[in-house]
Amino acid sequence: MIVVNMKAYAEVNGEGGLKIAKVCEEVAKELAEKKELSIIVCPPQASLAWIATQVEIPCFAQHVDAVEPGSHTGAVTLESVKATGAAGTLVNHSERRLKIADIDFIVQKAKKLQLLTVVCTNNVAVSRAVAALEPYAVAVEPPELIGTGRSVSKVDPAVVENSVKAVKKIYDDCIVLCGAGITDGDDVRAAIELGADGVLLASGVVKAKDVRAKMLDLISGL
Amino acid sequence: MIVVNMKAYAEVNGEGGLKIAKVCEEVAKELAEKKELSIIVCPPQASLAWIATQVEIPCFAQHVDAVEPGSHTGAVTLESVKATGAAGTLVNHSERRLKIADIDFIVQKAKKLQLLTVVCTNNVAVSRAVAALEPYAVAVEPPELIGTGRSVSKVDPAVVENSVKAVKKIYDDCIVLCGAGITDGDDVRAAIELGADGVLLASGVVKAKDVRAKMLDLISGL
Amino acid sequence: MIVVNMKAYAEVNGEGGLKIAKVCEEVAKELAEKKELSIIVCPPQASLAWIATQVEIPCFAQHVDAVEPGSHTGAVTLESVKATGAAGTLVNHSERRLKIADIDFIVQKAKKLQLLTVVCTNNVAVSRAVAALEPYAVAVEPPELIGTGRSVSKVDPAVVENSVKAVKKIYDDCIVLCGAGITDGDDVRAAIELGADGVLLASGVVKAKDVRAKMLDLISGL
Amino acid sequence: MIVVNMKAYAEVNGEGGLKIAKVCEEVAKELAEKKELSIIVCPPQASLAWIATQVEIPCFAQHVDAVEPGSHTGAVTLESVKATGAAGTLVNHSERRLKIADIDFIVQKAKKLQLLTVVCTNNVAVSRAVAALEPYAVAVEPPELIGTGRSVSKVDPAVVENSVKAVKKIYDDCIVLCGAGITDGDDVRAAIELGADGVLLASGVVKAKDVRAKMLDLISGL
Repeated sequence: MIVVNMKAYAEVNGEGGLKIAKVCEEVAKELAEKKELSIIVCPPQASLAWIATQVEIPCFAQHVDAVEPGSHTGAVTLESVKATGAAGTLVNHSERRLKIADIDFIVQKAKKLQLLTVVCTNNVAVSRAVAALEPYAVAVEPPELIGTGRSVSKVDPAVVENSVKAVKKIYDDCIVLCGAGITDGDDVRAAIELGADGVLLASGVVKAKDVRAKMLDLISGL
Repeated sequence: MIVVNMKAYAEVNGEGGLKIAKVCEEVAKELAEKKELSIIVCPPQASLAWIATQVEIPCFAQHVDAVEPGSHTGAVTLESVKATGAAGTLVNHSERRLKIADIDFIVQKAKKLQLLTVVCTNNVAVSRAVAALEPYAVAVEPPELIGTGRSVSKVDPAVVENSVKAVKKIYDDCIVLCGAGITDGDDVRAAIELGADGVLLASGVVKAKDVRAKMLDLISGL
Repeated sequence: MIVVNMKAYAEVNGEGGLKIAKVCEEVAKELAEKKELSIIVCPPQASLAWIATQVEIPCFAQHVDAVEPGSHTGAVTLESVKATGAAGTLVNHSERRLKIADIDFIVQKAKKLQLLTVVCTNNVAVSRAVAALEPYAVAVEPPELIGTGRSVSKVDPAVVENSVKAVKKIYDDCIVLCGAGITDGDDVRAAIELGADGVLLASGVVKAKDVRAKMLDLISGL
Repeated sequence: MIVVNMKAYAEVNGEGGLKIAKVCEEVAKELAEKKELSIIVCPPQASLAWIATQVEIPCFAQHVDAVEPGSHTGAVTLESVKATGAAGTLVNHSERRLKIADIDFIVQKAKKLQLLTVVCTNNVAVSRAVAALEPYAVAVEPPELIGTGRSVSKVDPAVVENSVKAVKKIYDDCIVLCGAGITDGDDVRAAIELGADGVLLASGVVKAKDVRAKMLDLISGL
């Protein structure tokens, strides 16, 4: 599994984000027969419905608010995400950390709505804690490596390996991803060898000169 | 000017929000020759691009984050709003209050991007303070009346009248709207008589059985 | 264990908070030989050092910020709490919920500083998650019962019983308290019978006409 | 006027903060006959009552929460500050920025309680906006200079001069301070020459080897 978080980069505004989603869709279709592969894209929040209605691969929100539908100006509810046709949401990204009661609210409610949750964590202890809430996936991302190009799977293999063990011990069905600094197929391969089920990345794809080539390289590591 | 804030109501998820926007567009076109009228809609955040690309009336974001484009997962930047074709944004709604330095950032940056800002306030003193930042419009909304159906223009005319005076004294070009509890043409008429240039409302339209009839009634008060 | 959270009630400003702390100290001393009893008080934040230097029972901060000492105006660091002579801190009270990474920061750092942490939770799932961080104690408090006088140990015994089991399964050394609506010795007795090690309460003591009598009644339930 | 913000530096925990307050008190008394001088200290939040009861110069909180006394765990109310004997509070420091409606709440309520408010701002536009709320004082502090030792009064004199003009135009009685990078008497002199009524500083005093000598140097610039 490869999750592409488009963040709020200038490159993904308007057509830019759609183009990246289309390339990911194309690659996913081409490789569908050869590999068991899941590519998920997280468009900019304001483009979520617009992109989700134009591609067939799963789209995720980058963030949702822990509220019921109602009088909440500016909030992104799980119900509004579901209605766009999106398949799930990132939760608690290090750039959008949430209160623990709100993570719990989102994870439990997403299950009822059949939406998937990828909950980000910053270390092994927090990975364990989040696993106790039984989300679809945990993505461990040491914040100090995000955006550096120095891959967590090479620079800090212990945090990946120990997070995998800790999460599976508490909730065996949980998918474990790793992120931060992932830039090529080697980084992905290292992650898989440490027990991760996939990777979460952002600038590595968004800022790639050739997004198609970059995706193919990353997938080669799976 | 009538600004319809769709908030995060269940009614506006998916097709629901688009339908309301389409009705507003239709009404705006029909009356374009008879009245100098501006109808603005604020779709749910995740539907912004999707709706903005399908209607010709101005769409506004309900909220933006005070950050530059970049590594900000879940953030809605002014640049991403601009790229959807939207015309502006609500700022500092009572359900999404902002820090004063962030309101300043958003107002000044929106001007550079030629986006309009409607900054919400809760009383006369805050209206004065916000006017000093020179936004496109100030919308005064006493939070205790929001969603009550008891209209600010009837229940608390002084806050409308004094906000208009205070705002215009500090920044004469500023449009002044009022909101909270606006439900029919009489409420709009009362607002205009108190010196307001228009109204900001939400549940009055979103939860109307007949949105078209509701819009026509509201407009009759202008 | 009885933890008295003084919150920000008018009654505990200035001398009021000191008086309550003194009564608790007196009661603790009197009963020291008869019962294995621990009474902890949480003074208003601005009075923490002032009260902690005047009583011999353990004082806790009501909240700390997840930052290192430094350029953080208005922040309460664990180091500043330690320097007052206080023994620990409440963490993640439902009126001051924290991000999960910040709870982790506070719990781990408090251990290094030999400060105790009582982490509040709102349901069984969150109790489990917090236990995975291995704090000194978990205090489960369904927010809808706080301040109602309807005791969690009577109204919702399952949340207490299941939190105790869930927490001990993940981290056996963890103390488990319960709170919300605790007002008399019967409520305390019910909590203890459900497996809790003690209670966390606020208005029940702060607003009591006779704080001494109230404390004696509560303790009778241990 | 010189306002010493102790922040959450390691140096001001426990006895350290009291010592600085005592030195400031001593200097204020010595110079009381020669100069019209006001020295204000802002102790760490947890030490506020403890220090305010031991010195005779005015103490300010570093931050207060915009809530009424009540069920607000961890909050510092204006009433609790008043009860410590403190004279006022900093508001909206760049390290603790507040929502505009909350600044308004705090400023208006402080007046009723006869507490002084020093509201921090980051540029001329925000200084103007805050002046419209009529606080006791505005302290303009460009955040990029805080803690640098490069003084705002020398590096960016325009922001000081224009803030003074903008504030006095909106609310003539308002005191205007400047801060950020102030380290010696020359910086203070430059600030006064630009029209400021005094300075707000932190590390310059807290981290001084000789606090007494530092205070005398700063005062020489008044």
